[in-house]
Amino acid sequence: MNEALIASTQGDTLITTVMAAIRQRIASRSLTPGARLPSVRALAASMSVSKSTVVEAYERLAAEGVIRSRPGSGFYVAAPVAPLSLADIGPRLDREVDPLWISRQSLDAGDTMLKPGCGWLPASWMPHEALRRGLRTLSRHGDATLVDYGTPLGLRALRELLARRMGEHNVAVAPDQIMLTESGTQAIDMICRYLLDSGDTVLVDDPCYFNFHALLRAHRAKVVSAPYRPDGPDIERLAVILEEHRPRLYLTNSGIHNPTGASLSPVTAHRLLKLAEQYDLIIVEDDIFADFEIMPAPRLAAFDGLERVITIGSFSKTLSASVRCGYIAAKPEWVEGLVDLKIATSFGGSHFAEALVLAVLTDGGYRKHLEGLRTRLARSMAETVARLEESGIVPWLTPQAGMFLWCRLPEGIDAGKVARQALAEGIVLAPGNAFSLSQTANGFMRFNVAQSGDSRIYRLLEAALSG
Amino acid sequence: MNEALIASTQGDTLITTVMAAIRQRIASRSLTPGARLPSVRALAASMSVSKSTVVEAYERLAAEGVIRSRPGSGFYVAAPVAPLSLADIGPRLDREVDPLWISRQSLDAGDTMLKPGCGWLPASWMPHEALRRGLRTLSRHGDATLVDYGTPLGLRALRELLARRMGEHNVAVAPDQIMLTESGTQAIDMICRYLLDSGDTVLVDDPCYFNFHALLRAHRAKVVSAPYRPDGPDIERLAVILEEHRPRLYLTNSGIHNPTGASLSPVTAHRLLKLAEQYDLIIVEDDIFADFEIMPAPRLAAFDGLERVITIGSFSKTLSASVRCGYIAAKPEWVEGLVDLKIATSFGGSHFAEALVLAVLTDGGYRKHLEGLRTRLARSMAETVARLEESGIVPWLTPQAGMFLWCRLPEGIDAGKVARQALAEGIVLAPGNAFSLSQTANGFMRFNVAQSGDSRIYRLLEAALSG
Repeated sequence: MNEALIASTQGDTLITTVMAAIRQRIASRSLTPGARLPSVRALAASMSVSKSTVVEAYERLAAEGVIRSRPGSGFYVAAPVAPLSLADIGPRLDREVDPLWISRQSLDAGDTMLKPGCGWLPASWMPHEALRRGLRTLSRHGDATLVDYGTPLGLRALRELLARRMGEHNVAVAPDQIMLTESGTQAIDMICRYLLDSGDTVLVDDPCYFNFHALLRAHRAKVVSAPYRPDGPDIERLAVILEEHRPRLYLTNSGIHNPTGASLSPVTAHRLLKLAEQYDLIIVEDDIFADFEIMPAPRLAAFDGLERVITIGSFSKTLSASVRCGYIAAKPEWVEGLVDLKIATSFGGSHFAEALVLAVLTDGGYRKHLEGLRTRLARSMAETVARLEESGIVPWLTPQAGMFLWCRLPEGIDAGKVARQALAEGIVLAPGNAFSLSQTANGFMRFNVAQSGDSRIYRLLEAALSG
Repeated sequence: MNEALIASTQGDTLITTVMAAIRQRIASRSLTPGARLPSVRALAASMSVSKSTVVEAYERLAAEGVIRSRPGSGFYVAAPVAPLSLADIGPRLDREVDPLWISRQSLDAGDTMLKPGCGWLPASWMPHEALRRGLRTLSRHGDATLVDYGTPLGLRALRELLARRMGEHNVAVAPDQIMLTESGTQAIDMICRYLLDSGDTVLVDDPCYFNFHALLRAHRAKVVSAPYRPDGPDIERLAVILEEHRPRLYLTNSGIHNPTGASLSPVTAHRLLKLAEQYDLIIVEDDIFADFEIMPAPRLAAFDGLERVITIGSFSKTLSASVRCGYIAAKPEWVEGLVDLKIATSFGGSHFAEALVLAVLTDGGYRKHLEGLRTRLARSMAETVARLEESGIVPWLTPQAGMFLWCRLPEGIDAGKVARQALAEGIVLAPGNAFSLSQTANGFMRFNVAQSGDSRIYRLLEAALSG
C-alpha cells in the first residue's frame, strides 16, 4: 500500500468515527430532529480531528439524509422519516398476541374462520328485522336525515333517550351533557385527546380490553395497571399506584368488565371514588356492555354525578357494529371543548347512523330482542363453561351476564402458543397477555360464549392442551 | 399593632412572596407538571427566607392544589387541570370569526337561517332518490352488512371503484392502497396522527379551508402558510418557507381550491413536487371537490405516483354528508400503519355507510345527478357573481366549477364586522380571516353560490356595505 493510500484510509476511518458519533447522538436523542449540529470547528476540537474530516463526515451524513445543511447556518438533524408505528410503542410482543394483531385477525376473518376470541356476537344474533324496519322508515324520512351534516352534539331525540336510559342507572344527566360520537372507541379516543397532555400517565385494569393498550399507544401515554378483582379494581394496589404514578385518567368498565366479566361492587366503587378525589383522577367508565346486564351493577357516574367520571357507550354490541354510533356523557364544561374537538377532527357526526340507531331503539321489538339475547347468552355461558371444564379450562369467575368468560388454562400451558396453533387451523383465540400490561396472564384466555359453540374449538383445545 | 402581630404580618408577606415566585415559575413553565420543586433548604437559601417560611408557602400551595406533596420525597407540580382548549391554541380571534365558531354556527343553524358562508349544498340538491333506492336495496342485504364490523381497510368493492376513479385522474393506485375512513376530515386527522411528531411544522395555503386551522390546533402543530395564487401556491414564497421552516406536511386542494375556487396548473404542480422532494415534504392532497370539476385539474398524486403525496377524499359534498365515508390513498408502507391507527382509535369503519355509498355510486342515476349539479352550480355561480357585483363585491377569480366564490369586499370594509351584523339577522357568512393564517384576508369573504339565492343576503350586504 502506498503512503497516499494509507493516509486516505486513515482519513476514512476518522470520518467514519465522526459519522458514527453523530449517529449515536441522534439515536440517543441527545440531538433531536431539527437540532443544530455542533459547528465544524467545535466538533473538530472536541474529537481531536481536522476540520476537513468533520466537513467530510457532515457531507456524507447529509448525502444519506441523516442531517441537512442550511447554507450559511450550519447543519441540522433531519426530520424523522419513520411515521408513528403503534407496533413499536410499548412492550414488544409476539405478533400473534399483539392486541392490534388480534383485532385485525378477527376483523379480517371471513365466514370460514371460527372466532371464540372476538368481542362481538354472531350476525344472526343481532336485531336485523328491527334494522330493516328502521331502514325502510328512514327511506321515507325528509331529505335532511339522508344528506345533511349532523348537529355538533348529535341528534337531540337520541340524546334525550340516552339521558333517560342513564337515569334508569341513577345517573342524572341532561341531554346537552351528551355528545354523540362515531363509536365507543372514538369516544374514548376523543376524551384522551381532550384531557391528556404529553407525558401524562393513564391507569388501566390488569387485565383490560386489549384495544385500550393500542389506543393508549396511539396517544403515547405512559400506562400503568392495577389488578382487577371479582368486585372491581384492587383498591390497596390502586392507592399505591396513584401515590406513585399520579395518573390523570383511569379507563375501566363497571357494568360487565372486559375480559373478566366481573361486576363492580358498591363498596369498591365508593373507595375508588374517594381515592379518585384524593388524587385528582378522572375516570372514564366504558358502559358498552350495559344492555347485557340482568342485575345492573352500580355506576361510578351515579355516585359521582359526572363530576370526575365520564361515561361512554355505544350500540355496537347489541344493535349493530356496522352502523357506527357512540356517546360521551360528561360535565357541561367538558362537553363544550369536546364539541370543538369533534368538529376539528371529524366535522359532523353520523347523522344517518344516529337516526337509524334511534329508530331501532324506539322500535317495539328492541326490548324483546335484548331479553332474548340475555337468555341466549346465559344458556351459551352455561354450555361453554361445561365444555371448557371438560378440557380442564376453568373460569376465573362465572359472570352474572355478558358474552365473556375469562378462563385459567391448566398449569404450564402457554396461551400464546395455543393461540398460534389455533390460528393455523382457522380459529382466532384471545390469549391472556393481550389483555395484560404486566404480561402476567399467559395462563389465561378470554372466550366469547356466543362464538364458542363449534366442536372444532374444543377439539383444537384438547389437542393443544394434551401436548 | 403589637410586636408579635407585626412579626406575623411580615412572615405572611414573605410566604406570599415565595408562593408568588413558585406560581410564576409554573406559569412560565420553568417548572412543568410533575416536576419536583426545589428542596426547602435550597429555596430558603436562594430567596433569603427561613425554611419555615418555605414550608408554610409549600403547604399553602399544596392546599390550593397547585403542588402536591409526596411524603418522603418532596413537593411536585400538580397535573394541569385545564383540558385541551382549541380556542386557546393559535392566534386569538374574535369569537365570531373563529374557524370553529363558523362551523358550529353553520352546523347548528336551523332551517330558518341562511347560510351563504357554509361549505355544503342545500339538502334538496343532493341525490335523495338514489339514497332512498340504496336504503331499500340494503334493507334486503344479508345480515352482515347491517350488523357486522367492517374490515380494517373497508369494503373491497368500494375501494376497487375508488381505484378506478383515481385511475381516470391518472393516479395509478391498487385497491389495497386505499383505506376507507369515516370522513374526509377524519382521513386528514389520521394522517396527521400518523406522520406528525410533536413540534412538527405543517404548511397550509393562505387562504385555506378554515377547519384545517382547527384540526392543526388539535394536533398542536406549528403552522406556516404560503399565499395561494390563481394557479396554485406561490412557488417563490413556498421555497423560502420550506427553507426556513422545514414543514413535514403540506395540506392543500388541487382540484377546486377551498376557498378560492382556483385550480392547480401543471407547471405549478411540477415545481411544487420538485421542491417537495428537495425538502422532504409530504403532501396531503384533499380531493373532496373532485366530482364538481368540469375540466379536471392535474393531480399531484398523478405526477408523484403516491410516493410523497397522499390523496384523501369523501362523498360529503355530492352524495351525502349524513352518511359518513371518506378515504385515504397512500403508498403501501403507510397503509399498514394507518390501519393499525384506525383500529386503535375507531376500531372498525362504517361498514353500513360504505355499503350505502357504494350502492349510490353504482346507481345508474348518480352520473346524471353529477351532471345536473354541475349545470346548476354554473348557473348559480353566474347569478351570484352578477348580484354580488351590484353590491361592489368582486370575485378574486371566476372558478371553473364548484360552489365557492372568494370575493373582495369594497375598500375599507371589515368582513368580520359584516359577518357579526349578518349573524344578528340570521345569516351565517364566512369572513376572510377565518381562512387566513396571516390574518390578511379581512377584506375578503367566501360565498357558497348554492346557498346564496335569497334576496335577504344582498339586502343585508348592501346595508352593511353602505353603512
